[in-house]
Order: sequence, then C-alpha cells, then structure tokens
Amino acid sequence: MAQVIADRRDVDFVLHEQLKVEELSKHKKYAEFSKKTIDMIITEARNLAIKEILPTQKAGDEEGCKFEDGKVMVPESFHRAYKLFREGEWVAMMEDPEWGGQGMPVTVSLAASDYFNGANYAFMMYPGLTLGAGSLVNEFGTEKQKELFLRKMYSGEWGGTMLLTEPEAGSDVGALTTSAVKNDDGTYSITGNKIFISSGEHDLVENIIHPVLARIEGAPAGTKGISLFIVPKIWVNDDGSLGESNDAVCTGIEEKMGIHGNSTCSLMLGGKGKCRGFLLGEENKGMRAMFHMMNEARLLVGMQGFACATSSYLNALNYARERVQGKNLLMQLSDPNAPSVPIIEHPDVRRQLLTMKTYVEGMRSLLYYVGLCQDKANLSDNPEDRLRYEGLVEVLTPIAKGYVTDKSFEICSHGIQVYGGYGYIREFPQEQLLRDCRITMIYEGTNGIQAMDLLGRKLRMNGGKPVMDLIEEGGKIIAAAREAHGLSDLADRVEKAVEKLSEVGIHMGKTSMSFKALNAFAFAHPFMEVCGDVVMAWMLLWRATVAAPKLEKLVGATDFWERREEVEKNKNAAFYEGQLKSAEFFIHNVLPTTLGKMDVILETNSAAVDIPDVSFGG
Amino acid sequence: MAQVIADRRDVDFVLHEQLKVEELSKHKKYAEFSKKTIDMIITEARNLAIKEILPTQKAGDEEGCKFEDGKVMVPESFHRAYKLFREGEWVAMMEDPEWGGQGMPVTVSLAASDYFNGANYAFMMYPGLTLGAGSLVNEFGTEKQKELFLRKMYSGEWGGTMLLTEPEAGSDVGALTTSAVKNDDGTYSITGNKIFISSGEHDLVENIIHPVLARIEGAPAGTKGISLFIVPKIWVNDDGSLGESNDAVCTGIEEKMGIHGNSTCSLMLGGKGKCRGFLLGEENKGMRAMFHMMNEARLLVGMQGFACATSSYLNALNYARERVQGKNLLMQLSDPNAPSVPIIEHPDVRRQLLTMKTYVEGMRSLLYYVGLCQDKANLSDNPEDRLRYEGLVEVLTPIAKGYVTDKSFEICSHGIQVYGGYGYIREFPQEQLLRDCRITMIYEGTNGIQAMDLLGRKLRMNGGKPVMDLIEEGGKIIAAAREAHGLSDLADRVEKAVEKLSEVGIHMGKTSMSFKALNAFAFAHPFMEVCGDVVMAWMLLWRATVAAPKLEKLVGATDFWERREEVEKNKNAAFYEGQLKSAEFFIHNVLPTTLGKMDVILETNSAAVDIPDVSFGG
Repeated sequence: MAQVIADRRDVDFVLHEQLKVEELSKHKKYAEFSKKTIDMIITEARNLAIKEILPTQKAGDEEGCKFEDGKVMVPESFHRAYKLFREGEWVAMMEDPEWGGQGMPVTVSLAASDYFNGANYAFMMYPGLTLGAGSLVNEFGTEKQKELFLRKMYSGEWGGTMLLTEPEAGSDVGALTTSAVKNDDGTYSITGNKIFISSGEHDLVENIIHPVLARIEGAPAGTKGISLFIVPKIWVNDDGSLGESNDAVCTGIEEKMGIHGNSTCSLMLGGKGKCRGFLLGEENKGMRAMFHMMNEARLLVGMQGFACATSSYLNALNYARERVQGKNLLMQLSDPNAPSVPIIEHPDVRRQLLTMKTYVEGMRSLLYYVGLCQDKANLSDNPEDRLRYEGLVEVLTPIAKGYVTDKSFEICSHGIQVYGGYGYIREFPQEQLLRDCRITMIYEGTNGIQAMDLLGRKLRMNGGKPVMDLIEEGGKIIAAAREAHGLSDLADRVEKAVEKLSEVGIHMGKTSMSFKALNAFAFAHPFMEVCGDVVMAWMLLWRATVAAPKLEKLVGATDFWERREEVEKNKNAAFYEGQLKSAEFFIHNVLPTTLGKMDVILETNSAAVDIPDVSFGG
Repeated sequence: MAQVIADRRDVDFVLHEQLKVEELSKHKKYAEFSKKTIDMIITEARNLAIKEILPTQKAGDEEGCKFEDGKVMVPESFHRAYKLFREGEWVAMMEDPEWGGQGMPVTVSLAASDYFNGANYAFMMYPGLTLGAGSLVNEFGTEKQKELFLRKMYSGEWGGTMLLTEPEAGSDVGALTTSAVKNDDGTYSITGNKIFISSGEHDLVENIIHPVLARIEGAPAGTKGISLFIVPKIWVNDDGSLGESNDAVCTGIEEKMGIHGNSTCSLMLGGKGKCRGFLLGEENKGMRAMFHMMNEARLLVGMQGFACATSSYLNALNYARERVQGKNLLMQLSDPNAPSVPIIEHPDVRRQLLTMKTYVEGMRSLLYYVGLCQDKANLSDNPEDRLRYEGLVEVLTPIAKGYVTDKSFEICSHGIQVYGGYGYIREFPQEQLLRDCRITMIYEGTNGIQAMDLLGRKLRMNGGKPVMDLIEEGGKIIAAAREAHGLSDLADRVEKAVEKLSEVGIHMGKTSMSFKALNAFAFAHPFMEVCGDVVMAWMLLWRATVAAPKLEKLVGATDFWERREEVEKNKNAAFYEGQLKSAEFFIHNVLPTTLGKMDVILETNSAAVDIPDVSFGG
C-alpha cells in the first residue's frame, strides 16, 4: 500500500473553489500566478514530495542524525533530497526575487508546503529554518548584510537557524544570559550556551547562519535588553568569502521522541572567546524582531503538525478500504456466515475516519486562509484593509498553531487506532507520524503560550477590532450558507455557537483584566479550544456552502437519499457530498460539546488556581 | 530529580478510607489480610518496584529485545529484576495457594500492580502473561494438567503467553485458520502462524507455556469452532520432565513504538509438522474460555495504561515544583522585575496538573473498585450478591480498559506538555510513558471493541440489571455526599449527569436494537466516554465524601479560605483538601462538557454511517 500525503482534490478545492486564490493575480505583484501556473507549481511540488522526499521519511526516522566530534551527519538519503529541493528553487518560495526568492503568494507556498511537510517535515526543517533566518536578515539587515547572506541562504547553499533557548530560558526568553560585547571593528563578541536548536549543525551545507538572541553588556534585564545578532558558523569576510571557523561549536544533539532526521543541537558560543557576530537591527530590539517573525513561524509549525495529520488520515483511509476484518454488523444478524468486509464498513471506524476527515479539512482551510489574509495584507493599497487583514492574521495565528497542533496530534492517534495493532509497529507510518507530530505542540511557543497570546494580547488588540472582523467574516459565510439549499439548519447552529463564543470572549476579556486574572488564564487553553472549534465549524460550513450548489448542478437532487446513487458514480459529486457530510458531522457531533465547554469557561471555576500547592500530592 | 510512580498516600486512601478493603478479612478466605498485612505487602511491592524494577524502565526502552536465530534476548537488566520478582513470590499474588499462589484479594494485588506496572510495565508483561496463561490452566485444565504446569508457572520458573492473533484474524478472532488434528495419543498436532504475541519468546525462563486458539479439523467456521490448546515451547513429559523442543518457533519480533522491553513475537507452529498440544477444556469451547479470562486481562491492561498516567502525573508535578521559569502573572503586573517562579504557579500549568490529578485519582478508584467487586463476588455466599458483583465487574470492565486507557494516553500527553521541550527528549521519562501507554488502547480488544462490548452486551445483560445496580451504587454516594458539608452542589450536579446518562442509555439500548443499529454503534465510543466521565465523577465525589468530614475534623473550618492556612501546614489536611478540589474541578470543568456529549449521542446524527465510502476522498 503506497503511502500518501495531501489529498490533491482537497488542496485544489481550498485554493481555487473556497479561497479563489487566483484572484491575487489581479494585482501586479502576483500577475504571473494564474490558476494554470499555480496548478503547475503544486504539481511540481507534489511530484518532488512524493518521489524524492517521502522515501526519506522512514529512513530519516530510523537512521537519525549522528553526532561526532562537533559535527552532525544527517541521514544519508537527505543529501540527494536536499540537492533536488535546492535545484527546484523551493527554499524561498515567497521571498523577494531580487534576492533569489520565487515571489509566490503565501497561500500558494502553503499548498506546496502541505506536500513537502507531509513528505518529511524533519527534513523540511533544514530549509525551513534557513528561510526563517533569511527573513530576519531581509527584514532587519543592512544592505551589506543582505548582500553577504541572503542569496546564499535563499538558494539553500548556506543554512540558517534560530538561537533562542537556553537551559534556564525557554518559554521565558527574557531570562537568557548569553552576552555580547562590542568590539572595536563594530562586531560583537558573543558568549553563551544555547540549546534545542533545530538544524543547528549538519552536513547539508558549507556554512550555517545563526541568528542569536543575546544581551549586550549593560543592557536592561528581561526582554527589553535583548538584541539580535548574526553569528555565522564560518566567518564571512567583507568580500563574501569564507574565513575562519567562528567558535560556535555544537556540543551535542538530543535524542528525541521523533523528528529524528532533524538535528536538535546544543551550541557553545565563544567557548574559546572567539565567537563574533554582527548586530542585526537595533540594539535591545531583538524581541521586536522575533515577534515580527513569529506569526510566519507559528503558521509553519501549524502546517507541520497538520501535515502529519493529513498523512495519517489518508493512510488510515486507504488501510480501512483494504483491510478485511470482521463482518458487517447488519449482515451478520441475518447471516452468521456473511463474508468479512473491509473495516471501513464498521461504524466505529467510520466515526474515526470522518472525525479525522473533518478536522483535516477544516484545518487545511484555516491554514491556507491565514496565508490568504497575509497575502491580502501584503497587497493592500489602503491602510485600513491592510490593518484588517493583518489583524485577522494576528488573531488566527495562535489558533493555527495551538489548536491545529493539538488536534493534529489527536488525529494522528486516531490514525494509529484505525490500524489496530499494525498502527503500533514501525513497519507502518502511523506511529512515526504521531511521534513527529508531538513536538509541534511544544516548540515555537508551547500551546499554553499560544493560548495566553490569544487571551492576553490578541483578544484585546486594537480594542478588539480583529476579533470583531473575524466574527464579521464568519457572519458572511453564515449568511451565504442560509441561502444554499439544505444548509440553513447548519448555519443556525454555527450562528448560535458564534453568539455564545462572543459572550465567552467578552467574559474572558473582562475577567482577564480583573482581580480574577489568574483564574481567567487558567481557562486560556480551553478558550483557545472553543475558538478553534468555532473556526473549524465556520471553515467547514464555508466549504459546504461552496460545494452545495455545485453538487446540485451535478446530480440534480437536493435530498441525500435521492442523489446518493448518482453521487457514487461521479467523482466530483462524491467530493462535494463529502464536504456536506463533513460540515454536518462536525456541526452536529462536535459543536454541541463545544457549547458545553463554553459553559465551563463562563463559570470560570477557580479550583485550579485555589488548590494549595501541597494538595497536589506527590 | 528522582522518578516516582504511584502516590502512596493516595493508594492507601483508596484501599483503606474509600474502599475499606480490610473488611474482606472478616471472611475466612482472607482472614490473614489485616490492614497491617496489606500495608506490609504494599510497602514490599513499592520497595521492589522503586529500587529494582524502575531502574530497568529506561534501560529496557533503549536496549529493547534482540532476536537472533529463533531466540529472543530481553534487556540485560531484566534478568536480575525477574529473579527478585520471582523470589518475592509476586507472580501469582491472587492465585490459589494450593498451586503456589499467594491467595491475595484482587484489590490488594491491584495496589501492588500499581507499583510494579508503574515501575516498568513492559517488564511486568513477562510475569503478567504467565499469570494469565496459568489462570486458564487453573480454570479449564485437568488435575493432571494443573500438576504438570501450574506450580512452575505460578512460581515464574516457566513463562506463559496467549496465542490468539493471526495476520488475517485480529479483532475478528473467529477468522483464525490455525488448525489442530487429533493424534492417537490424545494430543493434537497444531499448524499455523500466530503474531503479536507478547512475551512469546524470551530468555528469562527455561520453558514457555503457550495457550493457543485453533480450529480442530472439521469444526464449524467462526468463533463456534475454536478450541483452546496448551502448546509448551519444550514438551513436558508425563512425569513433568522436559522433553524435546516442540516445533513452536519464533520467526521474528516487532519493532514497536514503545514497550521495547517486551518481546512481541511471531510464532510458527508446526512448521516441521511436529508441534503438539494438549486440549484445554472442551472442544469448540475455546472462545468461552477466552471470555472467562477477558475481564481480568482487560482490567490489567487498564492498570498498565493507568500506571503510565500516574507516573507521568507525579513526574510532571515534581518537575513543575522545581522548574523555575517565567514570572507570576499577578506579581509581574506590579513589579516587572519580579523574580522567576516555579512553573506550578502558572495557571495553565495548574490546569494541566489538576486535570492529570483528577483523572489519575478517579481512575485509581475505579480500577481498585472493580477489583473489590471481583473480591466480593468471589466471597459471596448467596447467588444474588454474587451475580450483583459479577454484573458490576462486567459492566465496568470495558470502561476500566477502554475509557481508562484513552484517558491515560491523554494524561501522558499532558505530562509531556508540562515539561515543555524537555518532555520530548529521551533524557526524561515522559515521552517513553506516552509511547508505552499507546498500545494499551489497542491490545486485549481495541477500545472500539470495548465500546461495542459495553453497548452491545453489557448494557442489555440480564435485562439491564448490572447497569441498574451501578446506578444504585452511584446513588448511595450521591446521597452520602448530600449529607456532607459543602458537597450538596456537587452531588446535585452528579445526580443530574446520572439522570441524563440513564436517558442516554435507554436511547442507545433501543437504537442499537432497531433498524438504526449501525447508527447506534457509530456512537458506541462516545457512549463509553460519557459513561466513563460519569463514573469518574462518581468516584471523585465518593472520595470527597470520605475526605470532607476528616478534613473538617482536622482543621475545623468548612470554608476554604478560612481553613486554607491550616491546610497548608498539615499533610493529611492537604491531602483531603486535594480530594475536595479534585471533585470540584472535575464536576465543574469536565462534567458540563459531558452533558454536551450526551446531547450529541441523543441526537445520533447519521453522517458517519451515511457518507458514501467514495466521499471520504483520498
């Protein structure tokens, strides 16, 4: 059974039928991204992903990275895949062509990423981190710094990383102690120990550019005294040639639960007092720079988790269609000798598959939609539109990272369960997908941090305007759904959930600013979850609203039992029918539980805050 | 930071204060199991678990089992642990002393198992499977068979397994094709391939006794034609001496996600036509024998999953108390330079810890309670009592396996999250606990099978009497809670949930017998979940009802804020306070969501059944 990744029909549906991404080509900047061009890009990405990258997934897991004497060797098969990835010019899909990027819309690059990450996201973290580091140079670097680094990075000739975490400074970045002292030549001497550095050292590239957060001597404590530096692994001379090794030494790699193909490194900077860096941007403005990159990075982490989920779903689906085991429950009643059937016929398997399908579809729409908002913000000519779209990105990002990775992990667990015992063994991909997926809930800000970001910052941002805008966008879909045949009941249910969520939002906003703030923050994560649930419902209703009239056109009948036979004969009709069923399933089976969760939040019971520490036991 | 397993205070609370297990000693059979004896047993088990077995957990994971030329080598450290475990006579704690068992109450043995499994359940699967196989011989064997096998097995000198699964017969046991042909000497020649055999081959013992499900030539198809055989790895002669190797050859072991310390074997039986077995019990009654063992085995799997959860909780708790990171949210508002605090002060961490605590406590009570019902059934002098307690065991078993392992997996995931990035690396125990835990949702009947068992068999068993009995037992606790200070609101809420669950049960019972049966079974798993939630609420309310008067006695005040200071100074008071907070948290924060899930079940939306297969996509 061939392993699969993203469902092309669904990718196309979101890009073209739901989000109408080709409309971006009306704008000069994206004029060349016609539907045809976009389809070609996705086809190329898909081919490369399936033929060349996917085969490295299992090999990367089994082989892992090797650490020896300061050097890290990636899994053997990654070298060829990386070469092809570079040759295809995929490293900097959405970046400025002036510096070697492809200038793609974010939305389109996400669709390509859907395939690449689904194929092997541990591998993708090498070019992925390079891109993130490159973006920092692009945004905050001097022209000279861009000249020195950008093309080499965007082409994948050099790698990039991000050095934030220290043993005592994880979620609390402000606690970091890595120090920087200015030298006479304008460079800085950097000293400190950094850990948990993805792609921190490896043998795919000749040089690695490390953006490093450090505190300049005498700078204020906390986040206000943090600056950002570029520390190349090998010094880059003024003329772009490589100089000496720069005293940034890999001291080890972590043994992890998953993503074994990616090296998670500890780096000692300035162990011999010879680590130099360039200041990137302004002194003490390092955190601002990080925040600038954060939305993009968090969206990509959401995509990583999601990529595991979509793979896991399609694998489970194929397995359920092929695995013959047990009898059809109804047939068995009338005939004890009824033949065994594929397990997709068993109600409990169908429940799990449809659960997986609905979340995967809703999450794909959400991720691409955030990309589209980013594109629209980038293209907007008037500040009001720009702010509106940027606001939508801000408020949706913690959901696209936190909620999506939470749910992706659950989906991966269903994906194991559908396989039964085979889901637990390494011969099949499901258990690796779950192991790989698990870290996405932690890095780039734990999902607890995402939830606090949503409650503490995004909810009250600009007086709550982004949240209001989001509700308005959702309202448009609800109104459209009401016009479509057979969707008015679903529309009513979603509207009811949105109304209740508004109530919850107001309550949480107030409570988080009151003397009960701790209490409110104990519900930050549940709040993120109900926000995510409602966004899922919105996305799935949107999909159904697009699908319903198309289905009607294809098969005529508006009643499911009348059209069913036709639907089974027509691939497109079957897809649209699947959209209606996804929306029905989620809105009828998940959303009522969400309302129960909202009741819980509205009550804001204080047990978790009140319980004396000693009463936790142990 | 020392790794921990079960919380002794909590174990003692359940045994003595909640379940009053020493009352069993009023009966002659358990006369020697006074409170003092029980405490000594638990102390010994705990010591052995922590000092000798726990150190093998990580080593077992890293080293795994090795397969070579038909032989399996367990991790090196397992040999010493096994020797000590045998010497302590722990293999057959609750079995008949006549055959070398210790004759303990099930409840007490579960408390010991809590420690042993928490220390390393992959290791415990060697004696665990031996015990299961021994129980089959004890229940269905002839006197001669008992003479030949039982003492050797109960002492751990020989091992035992269970050979059910074949590549095409997993959940559908009836599809198995392993065959048995009667020989002239009364033995049977067995031919077939079995897979997924835990402890199927290893070097801890000199002989392994395999109970094997096979079909006698000419027997009916399906489960009605299955018989049970004893197939020793090395033939056992009539005088008990060992004969030749018995053509039951290990052909390989699985590479798995977790429980690397336990060998999951494939066995080829009769590859050379020389595999012989003894019939165990009657011809074609093999499935009945399996069902007999099933409750016990499923309860133990619940315990395995749970053991991972309780370890994960205590590790997370200790970590949260020691790990300093970030500032107190409120202090930070008034003082930006406030010192960093242990993460247990952060509301989101508290929410996760209290979530873990409540489930762990509720599940411990549930598991031990099922053990107590089993003990009471075993001791009952009148058939009515016996049936009542057996019925409670029957109806609670799918929950103790299915619900408990589902939730234990979630708890283990929280246990990773509390550690942040450190939760994902192998240096810390959390990721292994999650990997080990995951299989408990699959083996011994997937949790989907458990849910079908609950809905399809247990709900309607004896006209629904066991379910009614369960509701009656819960009702007693609700009534008692209403009498306790400060618990009447909690009691009302639980009662409301029980009432709604009754409605859901009636609805599901009817629907599962109607033409909408498929639809009902698509909700079997959600139904098991809400049953489990309500049982948790009941168990936690029970605990609070026991704790409330004791707390009042210790500190006087019934108001939390008045007694708080006293509580923090008194360890016992702190524990009882923790019980009140657990009940409050679960009943206020989880149960309302459960009511939402019940609404979903009552609606029984048909999308999962209706959706055409082709509309799943892919």
